Amino acid sequence: MELSGDRRLPQLEYLGDATQFAARLHAMVPDSPLFENLNLAEIRLMSHFMQVYRAQAGQEVIREGDSGDFLMFVIEGRIEVFRQDRAGSPRLIAVVEAGKTLGEMSMIDGEPRFATCVADGASLIGVLTRESLARIILEQPILGAKILMELVLMLSQRLRQTSSRLLAALENERGPAGVADGGTGFV
Amino acid sequence: MELSGDRRLPQLEYLGDATQFAARLHAMVPDSPLFENLNLAEIRLMSHFMQVYRAQAGQEVIREGDSGDFLMFVIEGRIEVFRQDRAGSPRLIAVVEAGKTLGEMSMIDGEPRFATCVADGASLIGVLTRESLARIILEQPILGAKILMELVLMLSQRLRQTSSRLLAALENERGPAGVADGGTGFV
Repeated sequence: MELSGDRRLPQLEYLGDATQFAARLHAMVPDSPLFENLNLAEIRLMSHFMQVYRAQAGQEVIREGDSGDFLMFVIEGRIEVFRQDRAGSPRLIAVVEAGKTLGEMSMIDGEPRFATCVADGASLIGVLTRESLARIILEQPILGAKILMELVLMLSQRLRQTSSRLLAALENERGPAGVADGGTGFV
Repeated sequence: MELSGDRRLPQLEYLGDATQFAARLHAMVPDSPLFENLNLAEIRLMSHFMQVYRAQAGQEVIREGDSGDFLMFVIEGRIEVFRQDRAGSPRLIAVVEAGKTLGEMSMIDGEPRFATCVADGASLIGVLTRESLARIILEQPILGAKILMELVLMLSQRLRQTSSRLLAALENERGPAGVADGGTGFV
């Protein structure tokens, strides 16, 4: 069973697992890249593995540099993403609306968080840990494969956009870009 | 059963499925991000779903702009990756050595190829199609989940590197980078 030590956001109000939000999560499916291919039964299954927290306006939910093994699904409200520039000042780099996820990369690879995330107004946040995803894969392999496929698709699309922007920026900066260091994320 | 119409690289010499290469593929596991967590039994299972081709020096194996629903695993030799610059000239952007994969993104999202790939010397190439991956997931769910997890990990690491390079390039180019358009690939 769940222990309070399993809670990933001890600074926030914990509302229990996401089963009570299953119908609401299902209604958000059209806006949600991660869950767009899940039906209501699959959302119900998944919701047992997700924890829900309430964040107040201005509360920090992820801190740049921290380790973290979970992703966040914004159920209500919105989250601002800040990263320190070279001068050490926080700079807004993205805004994440309800239905969208953040934190996938650290959930997957365990590397430190790349940015700081702050609730812009009262927000509800679903948390899915790497351990929960591993349990889904073992206990509900078809559901697990669907979530993994969506993660792969999201990451691939982002990598395509980011690679494209990087190549354009490098061309602007110094003419022909150098050979990427083993970067085969281009094909 | 396999039909010749299923062959993704009709211009290359087809050598059959990868079962005959299973021991060799397994020996490459330490150099292979995609297969690093597979044991010999799993490599043997996977090899039934992979087709092997031989490419001669200078042969094009993927063309920028083509559609493509497969990834390539370089078993022997190496592949050069070219992308057209604004003037329409091919420019070398990456070199893919044995043990590494290319083409994952189009395999996953079906978007046109981002670059052209040419064999640099005689090469052996394993092909894994989206359909084969879907069959692995259905018929061998644990193996499927392992391959998907490795894909997620590879894409995440590449996205992290690419995002980092993009932010640096944008800072160089014009000072503070603008707010990313919904880009949450940063956390």
